[in-house]
Amino acid sequence: MSGTLQGIGVSPGAGFGPAHVMSRAVPPPPADVPHGGDAGAERDRALLALERVAADLQERGERAGGEGGKILQAQALMARDPGLSDGVAELVRAGKGAARAVYEGFGRYRSMLAEAGGYLGARVADLDDVRDRALAVLEGRPMADAPPAGAEPYVLVARDLAPADTALLSPDQVAAFVTEEGGPTSHTSIIARAMGVPAVVACPGATAVAPGTPVLADGSSGLVRLAPSGEEVSAARGAAAARRAALAAVTGPGATADGHAVPLLANIGGPQDLADALEHGAEGVGLYRTEFLFLGRAEAPSAEEQEAAYLEVLEAFPGGQVVVRTLDAGADKPLAFLPPPGEEPNPALGERGIRLLRLHPEVMETQLAALARAASRSTAVLRVMAPMVATAEEAALFAAACREAGLASAGVMIEVPSAALRAADLAAEAGFFSVGTNDLAQYAFAADRQVAALAALHDAWQPALLDLVALAAAGAAGRDRPCGVCGEAAGDPVLACVLVGLGAASLSMSAPALPAVRAALARHSREQCRLAARAARAAASPAQARDAARAHLPGLSGLGL
Amino acid sequence: MSGTLQGIGVSPGAGFGPAHVMSRAVPPPPADVPHGGDAGAERDRALLALERVAADLQERGERAGGEGGKILQAQALMARDPGLSDGVAELVRAGKGAARAVYEGFGRYRSMLAEAGGYLGARVADLDDVRDRALAVLEGRPMADAPPAGAEPYVLVARDLAPADTALLSPDQVAAFVTEEGGPTSHTSIIARAMGVPAVVACPGATAVAPGTPVLADGSSGLVRLAPSGEEVSAARGAAAARRAALAAVTGPGATADGHAVPLLANIGGPQDLADALEHGAEGVGLYRTEFLFLGRAEAPSAEEQEAAYLEVLEAFPGGQVVVRTLDAGADKPLAFLPPPGEEPNPALGERGIRLLRLHPEVMETQLAALARAASRSTAVLRVMAPMVATAEEAALFAAACREAGLASAGVMIEVPSAALRAADLAAEAGFFSVGTNDLAQYAFAADRQVAALAALHDAWQPALLDLVALAAAGAAGRDRPCGVCGEAAGDPVLACVLVGLGAASLSMSAPALPAVRAALARHSREQCRLAARAARAAASPAQARDAARAHLPGLSGLGL
Repeated sequence: MSGTLQGIGVSPGAGFGPAHVMSRAVPPPPADVPHGGDAGAERDRALLALERVAADLQERGERAGGEGGKILQAQALMARDPGLSDGVAELVRAGKGAARAVYEGFGRYRSMLAEAGGYLGARVADLDDVRDRALAVLEGRPMADAPPAGAEPYVLVARDLAPADTALLSPDQVAAFVTEEGGPTSHTSIIARAMGVPAVVACPGATAVAPGTPVLADGSSGLVRLAPSGEEVSAARGAAAARRAALAAVTGPGATADGHAVPLLANIGGPQDLADALEHGAEGVGLYRTEFLFLGRAEAPSAEEQEAAYLEVLEAFPGGQVVVRTLDAGADKPLAFLPPPGEEPNPALGERGIRLLRLHPEVMETQLAALARAASRSTAVLRVMAPMVATAEEAALFAAACREAGLASAGVMIEVPSAALRAADLAAEAGFFSVGTNDLAQYAFAADRQVAALAALHDAWQPALLDLVALAAAGAAGRDRPCGVCGEAAGDPVLACVLVGLGAASLSMSAPALPAVRAALARHSREQCRLAARAARAAASPAQARDAARAHLPGLSGLGL
Repeated sequence: MSGTLQGIGVSPGAGFGPAHVMSRAVPPPPADVPHGGDAGAERDRALLALERVAADLQERGERAGGEGGKILQAQALMARDPGLSDGVAELVRAGKGAARAVYEGFGRYRSMLAEAGGYLGARVADLDDVRDRALAVLEGRPMADAPPAGAEPYVLVARDLAPADTALLSPDQVAAFVTEEGGPTSHTSIIARAMGVPAVVACPGATAVAPGTPVLADGSSGLVRLAPSGEEVSAARGAAAARRAALAAVTGPGATADGHAVPLLANIGGPQDLADALEHGAEGVGLYRTEFLFLGRAEAPSAEEQEAAYLEVLEAFPGGQVVVRTLDAGADKPLAFLPPPGEEPNPALGERGIRLLRLHPEVMETQLAALARAASRSTAVLRVMAPMVATAEEAALFAAACREAGLASAGVMIEVPSAALRAADLAAEAGFFSVGTNDLAQYAFAADRQVAALAALHDAWQPALLDLVALAAAGAAGRDRPCGVCGEAAGDPVLACVLVGLGAASLSMSAPALPAVRAALARHSREQCRLAARAARAAASPAQARDAARAHLPGLSGLGL
């Protein structure tokens, strides 16, 4: 098998290894084969399979930690849901075989989730994954396809990847990801960039590749070579080694080649992500998503519990900066104790973020007070910002609440287009900005982040998105306010140079993306970044913008980018 | 009863008359009073009440015509729904009295609609209205509160108004609307502006006004005076008469005082709206929403049926311009034969407009071919535009489809922020722009149009929205393309001057808004409009923007604006 496939490169670098093709197409167990007659034994077989899957997911979740770990633990809870096991037992009593009963039992849950839509609807894929693992146990197949034997890293090829597929993988095992589906903001892309592994998504024909075929995947160009020549592989391996060496050679605080400081910070969900941030040289935290402290609870965490969590993060960066985003509830992160006030036909356009906090000032006040107390016990510089701010009036309201709580620095996320457009007005009220490129793109292009078919509109190289970042930075600069970027875009080393050229004062990203961004900045002057930014904005499409910017960033090639 | 209430003025002018307070709070019929024993007679009583309501709604729908008429006819269908009457009959058989059975029978439907969310969820208020009318029939009350006796126009005061409340009202009967709820884009506001009747919404305490109290409502300032002095009323009546005279004095094509032509066009949903457009002096059609031809059908209308409908509109404006928007399906306008391809957690951010047409090119091709054939049989200048265009690539795709169909002029709606930001790129592909301010505001502020609590973000005076209009117009001007405005904002005579100052080449609105806009433009030079626009954009809030603009538009006071 030879030839070339073309996809979208979403995590730079070249990866080579034998293809490990994950096939997730599990046929439904036949409906008309009843069990042998011993309903009790058959029921126990089904429930044991569910418990084995739950235990496996839980154990792997604990090992993985972080975001991936949370998803695995949530899946373990699904496998142990009493309503589900009751339903499966009932189906076995009615004569179904264990596998068919599991299949149908999950089917009922699936419909309920799918009909609920929103956050719950997005959990359907996780539920399907639990079901397929249970069916694998019952049918004597391995729960996930085993990777090829041997110490050689493999290229993981799949239709798309679920969190459970990737949470425990390490860059030592996986040379590259290649998926048929997905886009630049799909799970695969985010995980690949977080791991620092090259990845190509939206690559038609990938799963037709024969297992074991040698594959060379270029995560920048999106080219996937099948059975490449020895020279091609040597060249790619040489480039990869040179890239690793080049990345390792650059350490210390983020800065351009001419010494313009650009603090490089980490996006975290809580204290469990600190080790990763420190290991990759984060100078602080640029986005602490505090909602993970609140999710899945019947009541808000106490002021004391909040203070402890915030303090643990602050103490990891003595003298450094920690930017905390106040609770961003609503939309795809509904909280039991903070429901949106009415039916929301479009939750992403509903009463979320600061809009919901306005309606529940006690929740915001408790959080701000806990933050102020944590800051008073630490040498880190705490900055607090509000989500989903759309107008100067909302920024003023949040700044007043922060002053009331005794917090020195009150900023706002720039993730609603109107906030970027009126950045000068908002800068009169807020002490700093942080641009969230993911939600900003969702609204600027009126394209749901959860709808894969609209992925092209979420390409962070879309010139309209670059315009909005430039507007936000210019508005901030007019009042000498810093404007950072904390969305996915900041973790792309090429785009990172452009963002600095647009005026970003700091960049915050998932920790494993830090070394490549640090190295890319160190190889270019601020002026080169500005020229690259200007060229990108002058382009009329994402592809043109990327090419135009790269022409001004000659140091990228030395990094294999 | 005297004093002053403060709300938001949403339709200019001063209205005076006795308060007619509509109370819509109908207590649920008691659950524990069974019917007299004759279940058959009780069932017939319930079904007869439903039929009386249906007949009344249908008759009034036919008289009203237009958008309001369609809503009334849809309500008549609800009252005649066989599932509903079966449910009510069943409840009577189980012993419930007719009123209680109707109440509970509607309750089941209500939950289903509310859970469905989106377009269906928004129909809950219409369903409640049908139920309350049926209960009124059963309980011997009038179906709607009768207005005060006498020929004097009254001020209609309510919590909020339903389409059935307003569809048959005329400006001769109603001096003003005052509602406790609603916002600038609520049903009440839209209807009031369409009727040319002053209106104040979001006015706390309004429904506590004693019926018959003389009320003076100022639809510009939002002030509502209770029991005003004779002098106040005389002044207001004088101003109103002067306003009517001033409006009637200006006729002919739209233009500024110094003769800069601004074609004034009508927004229509189909041929049924043409009489109204012509009566108010529309120079053509600026937005023909073709989806009303497609809604509620199992299959797309045939090419012949479409051609006939388009030709009927074109022939109403010989030599004039008619701007047709191709099918805007998806989101709150789902079509049976054109379903979105997947689950949509946020339909407004999903695969709608041009995104859906890309997936069903045969629907777009049939529509464009029908338009081309209609244009070839008429002297009107046909312009065709695509909804929900976000990028230059989508604009190019639509322009190619129009060329293929033999259509000379292909434009795009500017209703996604990215399209306004990259207007220069889009102008390279499209022949003209039309700014849809309603959806543009929805996305720019990430605020659902259907969520009343977010109404302040939909104020068309929000400076960020004005910025986007200015960006769109500047992008168009760079290539000598005309950029019109067809959203609600164009029908506000003060804002209309600002839009012209921002560069709008034409304004399209609901027909009754045309005279006031025509008069406001005729009283100001293009330079005054530009100064007003500049002042509005320099403001930091909607209220400041409005005040700043008015300071440059001295001719408004002569119109009572």
